[in-house]
Amino acid sequence: MAASKCTRLGGELSRRFVASVDTVLFDCDGVLWRGDEAVPGAPELVNELKLRGKRVFYLTNNSTKTRAMYAEKLGRLGFGAEPSEVFGTAYCTAVYLRDMARLAGKVYLIGGQALSQELGAAGIPHLGQGPDPLTGGFSDWARVDRDPQVKAVVVGFDEHFNYMKLNRALQYLQDPSCLFIATNTDTRLPLEGGRAVPGTGCLVRAVETAAHRKAQVIGKPNSFIYDCVVKECGLEPSRTVMVGDRLDTDILMGSSCGIRTLLTLTGFSSLEDAKSYQKSGSDSMVPDYYVDSVADLLPALSEQDQ
Amino acid sequence: MAASKCTRLGGELSRRFVASVDTVLFDCDGVLWRGDEAVPGAPELVNELKLRGKRVFYLTNNSTKTRAMYAEKLGRLGFGAEPSEVFGTAYCTAVYLRDMARLAGKVYLIGGQALSQELGAAGIPHLGQGPDPLTGGFSDWARVDRDPQVKAVVVGFDEHFNYMKLNRALQYLQDPSCLFIATNTDTRLPLEGGRAVPGTGCLVRAVETAAHRKAQVIGKPNSFIYDCVVKECGLEPSRTVMVGDRLDTDILMGSSCGIRTLLTLTGFSSLEDAKSYQKSGSDSMVPDYYVDSVADLLPALSEQDQ
Repeated sequence: MAASKCTRLGGELSRRFVASVDTVLFDCDGVLWRGDEAVPGAPELVNELKLRGKRVFYLTNNSTKTRAMYAEKLGRLGFGAEPSEVFGTAYCTAVYLRDMARLAGKVYLIGGQALSQELGAAGIPHLGQGPDPLTGGFSDWARVDRDPQVKAVVVGFDEHFNYMKLNRALQYLQDPSCLFIATNTDTRLPLEGGRAVPGTGCLVRAVETAAHRKAQVIGKPNSFIYDCVVKECGLEPSRTVMVGDRLDTDILMGSSCGIRTLLTLTGFSSLEDAKSYQKSGSDSMVPDYYVDSVADLLPALSEQDQ
Repeated sequence: MAASKCTRLGGELSRRFVASVDTVLFDCDGVLWRGDEAVPGAPELVNELKLRGKRVFYLTNNSTKTRAMYAEKLGRLGFGAEPSEVFGTAYCTAVYLRDMARLAGKVYLIGGQALSQELGAAGIPHLGQGPDPLTGGFSDWARVDRDPQVKAVVVGFDEHFNYMKLNRALQYLQDPSCLFIATNTDTRLPLEGGRAVPGTGCLVRAVETAAHRKAQVIGKPNSFIYDCVVKECGLEPSRTVMVGDRLDTDILMGSSCGIRTLLTLTGFSSLEDAKSYQKSGSDSMVPDYYVDSVADLLPALSEQDQ
C-alpha cells in the first residue's frame, strides 16, 4: 500500500485501503460529530466497519467526559460503542498517574467532573474540583494553604478556572518535585456553526507562564493515548489507521506512531493546510490519505459484498 | 563615560556617573521597595537626587495603581513624588488608546479599578470591570452577548480573571479589527520573603492562546512608557539613566531607547544572569552598570559637597 502522501481516497484505492486495515482509531469531534450532531453517514460507517470485523477505538483530547460518558454520547448519536473502546484524556491522565508516574500523593486538579471521576476510579486522591471563590489579597494568595500531600498538578478543561486556581497551581509547582500534567493543549473547543470557546490549552499556557515550567501533555500529538490502546487492546501497526480532522494533533500523532493517517475535511484542518505542510517539508503533519467526510468510505465497504 | 558593560558603580566612578546624569528613571518594585517595605536608603537617595536638581520619574509595568495611587504609596514609604512623575501601565495604556490608537469605541477590560479609573480619566468608555460569575454552558458561552461598540480588548492585572472573561475576550478578538492591548507580560508579581503570585503575563498568554493573536504590549521592555515621559516632560537621552531590577524589561528597554542602564540587585535579576547574557552576546540585556542597592549611590551624592 505504498502511496504518495496526501492522496484522496476513492474508488478502487478506497476498497483496497479498507481491506488492508484491521483497526481504525477515530478522533471524535470534527470527525464523527460536530457539537451535538453526528456527521451524516458517520454512524453507518462505524457500525459497518464493526460488522466487517474491524476493531474501532475512539481517541479524544477532550477531558470533559469519562469513558462511560463518551460511550453514552456515541450511542445517543447512533454509534455502537463500549466504554472500553474509548481513550479520552480524562481516562488516560488517570492511567498515566497510576501506571507510569506511580504517583504516591494527591493531585491538585484544575479540571471538571469527568477528570475527577476517572482519577477516583484509578484510586488517585485529588482536590480542587469545582468553584474556588476569590478571597483575600496579594499576601493571602502568596501564603495560601497548601496540602503537603499534593505531588502533582493536573490541568484539564475547567469552566471554574480563575485567578485563585492559577495561584494555587503556582504555589504547588514552585516545588520542582511536583509533577505538572496537562490533558491537552487544544486552544479552542469548536462548536456548531463555526463558533468556538477557549480550550484547555489557554489554561495550560496560563499555568505554565506562572510556574516557569512546561507541562507534560497526555493528549495528541503525544503518543501516550495510542500507547494506552496498544497496551490494553493490542494492535498490528501496519494494519491500523488514525482518522482525524487536525494535522497538528491527530495526523502528527499517527505519523510519529508509525501508523497510516487519514485526514477528514469535516473539522478543523483544510486540504490547503495539508498541502502547505507538504510544500514546506513538514511530512509528519501531512496525512497519507484524505476524504471529504468519513462517510465517503461507505461505498468501499458495501462493494466488498459484490 | 564610555565604559565596558556591567561595571560595578562605586567610589570615583559612582561620583562621575551621578554628575553625568540629569534624569533618573526608576522602576519601583524590587528597586525602591519590595512589597510594602522601602529598600533601606532608597527614599533618602531619591530625595537627595531631587535636592541636587535631578529629575526623577517612576516607570512601572504594574497596572494595579493609578498615578495618584502610586504617588500616595511613594509618599507613604518616604519618597517625595507627584502623580505627574509616575508613568505606570494603567495610565500609559489610556494614553495609548486615546492619543496613538485614537480609539473610537469602547474597551472590553480585563483589569482592575486603577485601569478603569485611568481609562475613565482619559474619556475612554469601557466595560468588564469586576466579577463575571460563571453561568450557562458551551453553547451559551459561544453566543455570549457582545457590545458592538467594543473596538479594543485590554488585558491588565485582574484578580477576577476567570473562564467567562477569557471567553468574552475571545469572542471580541475574533473580529480582526478589534485592537488587542496588554499592559505588560510580567509572569509573576514578587512579594515579600521571595514569595510570588501569578502576574499579568499569565492572563495575557491565556487570551493570546484563545485568540490566536499576539497582544500589543504597553509595558517594558517596549518603549512606549519611555516615549510617554519624553513627550510629556522632555529629557536629554545622553544624560538619562534607567534603573531597574529586571534585565528582560528595565534593562532591555533602556538599551533599546539608547540611554544608560543600571541594574540593582535588590529584586528579580542577579549579577549571574547579567554575566550570562554578556557571555552569550545578548548585549541589550546587559546593564552598563550595577549596584547591590540603589542606596549605594548615596555616598556619591554627599561627596559632591566636599
